[in-house]
Amino acid sequence: MAKNGFKILDSDMHIMEPPDLWERYIDSRFKDRAPRGITSSNVRDLRMVYPDGREWARTTTRQNNSTRGHNFERNQAIYRVDSERQWSPEVQLEAMDIEGIDVAVLYPTRGLRALVVPDMDAEFAAALARAYNDWLYDFCKKDPARLIGAGMVSPYDMNDAVGEARRCAREFGFRAVFLRANPLVNHQWHDDYYEPLWQTLEELNLALGFHESTGTGKQQIGERLEPNSMLRRIYAQPIEQMLALGSFCAGGVLARHPKLRVAFLEANCSWLPWLLWRMDEGWEREGDV
Amino acid sequence: MAKNGFKILDSDMHIMEPPDLWERYIDSRFKDRAPRGITSSNVRDLRMVYPDGREWARTTTRQNNSTRGHNFERNQAIYRVDSERQWSPEVQLEAMDIEGIDVAVLYPTRGLRALVVPDMDAEFAAALARAYNDWLYDFCKKDPARLIGAGMVSPYDMNDAVGEARRCAREFGFRAVFLRANPLVNHQWHDDYYEPLWQTLEELNLALGFHESTGTGKQQIGERLEPNSMLRRIYAQPIEQMLALGSFCAGGVLARHPKLRVAFLEANCSWLPWLLWRMDEGWEREGDV
Repeated sequence: MAKNGFKILDSDMHIMEPPDLWERYIDSRFKDRAPRGITSSNVRDLRMVYPDGREWARTTTRQNNSTRGHNFERNQAIYRVDSERQWSPEVQLEAMDIEGIDVAVLYPTRGLRALVVPDMDAEFAAALARAYNDWLYDFCKKDPARLIGAGMVSPYDMNDAVGEARRCAREFGFRAVFLRANPLVNHQWHDDYYEPLWQTLEELNLALGFHESTGTGKQQIGERLEPNSMLRRIYAQPIEQMLALGSFCAGGVLARHPKLRVAFLEANCSWLPWLLWRMDEGWEREGDV
Repeated sequence: MAKNGFKILDSDMHIMEPPDLWERYIDSRFKDRAPRGITSSNVRDLRMVYPDGREWARTTTRQNNSTRGHNFERNQAIYRVDSERQWSPEVQLEAMDIEGIDVAVLYPTRGLRALVVPDMDAEFAAALARAYNDWLYDFCKKDPARLIGAGMVSPYDMNDAVGEARRCAREFGFRAVFLRANPLVNHQWHDDYYEPLWQTLEELNLALGFHESTGTGKQQIGERLEPNSMLRRIYAQPIEQMLALGSFCAGGVLARHPKLRVAFLEANCSWLPWLLWRMDEGWEREGDV
């Protein structure tokens, strides 16, 4: 906890959502389409399925229980009790106590793949995001001073994203929203398409956290490395974050929105000096091309 | 030139191939399909076309003369005389004298895109590579002690690649072969598909140079950044080289071929300590998954 007057903050802590989150929280119009979490003897089983049983988004081979590796049993032992207590807010707060963390910004686990399926329709995506945020608000209520929500917004329609960002800020008191770094729609982050969202986040003083995931069902550099899940994890997150960062720096988003705060999470950062140098070089050579 | 007894070597110097290289050097069976170089008032025009005039592979917007930027006129002035002298071996050697370079390994310019077109057939690709290498041998003959060839091999058929690597080593005295880092066929660099080539290069003591190019007509990360040629150049070469490096280290190629020498060229290297660390971490966490 607080040391020498300094608080310890975790800018990227994960929660484990209940498997029936969307069934319970989604607008009733969409309930029969909502994804279900799979549970099994693997206490960290993260799979999700459509109501008809087909897998929802794709996970890496790592998560399908067929291949496990030497850390599997150790993790099972560490997390078994937390899992039995259903990863409740109390579990979260106790884990923060153990790690000495005062305040944490909370990112999802299954939720990183909630919007990542082929042919996602915009209305359904918006409903999935609303359901997640409603649930997250209830989760954080246990101790809103320590549990800070990062809300889900849908990239499939900017009206939905803008509306949900406003709800996150005004109704829920969240301090951030998150997006996947790999583009789920056919627009780059520096395209006009996203301008209404960047403007709204700037206006609401709501941070944006890019959070990638190794498994995905959409365009992502990691696809090229299948079926080697080790190589996929090595590259997928940092490279997608490097590309997103380029849109915000060299693509001009931060120049247009100087008050926008953006985090590129869980992707290391020792590549950053190189990439900033390379963007400078690119700008000097070809900024006017 | 040699300073204090040390020779100055350039491991990645480019030549500018004559626009009619393939028409002149390709096997007569393929002559009517050979690409032609385009020349124009731009002394560094690098475009190529099919015999019917359609563009061969895709260049970035940077190269199509419609957008130029502040360096364009300066480069025109620097290279005008070299261009008028048709980038001959004499021009190359004089440029090396000016720069103080004793020995250079020579990579192509137009040739980086020779094999990068959709639906390339393997026989034609092999003929394009043979033609390039025949021409390069003639070019290097001017001073074989200073001009070292890096031969072109086709990734579309490993029998062709292996045969051409042998010709490069035994008939031409080349010291390396090169490949594009972005995969032109549906195989990863650590797949069995390439094993005959890696084995042959190891046996011949022929180095392998991966050389990427910003413009391309095939799967490449840079595609996602179109039409911004600055962003495309920032990312395309280093990210493709990072991915290829992963196949050779974490994918096991170098473990299987400890004498194989591989260069990842023209893509910076200050990202390397990060990537080696990340591969170590991946191996420790999931090397057995």
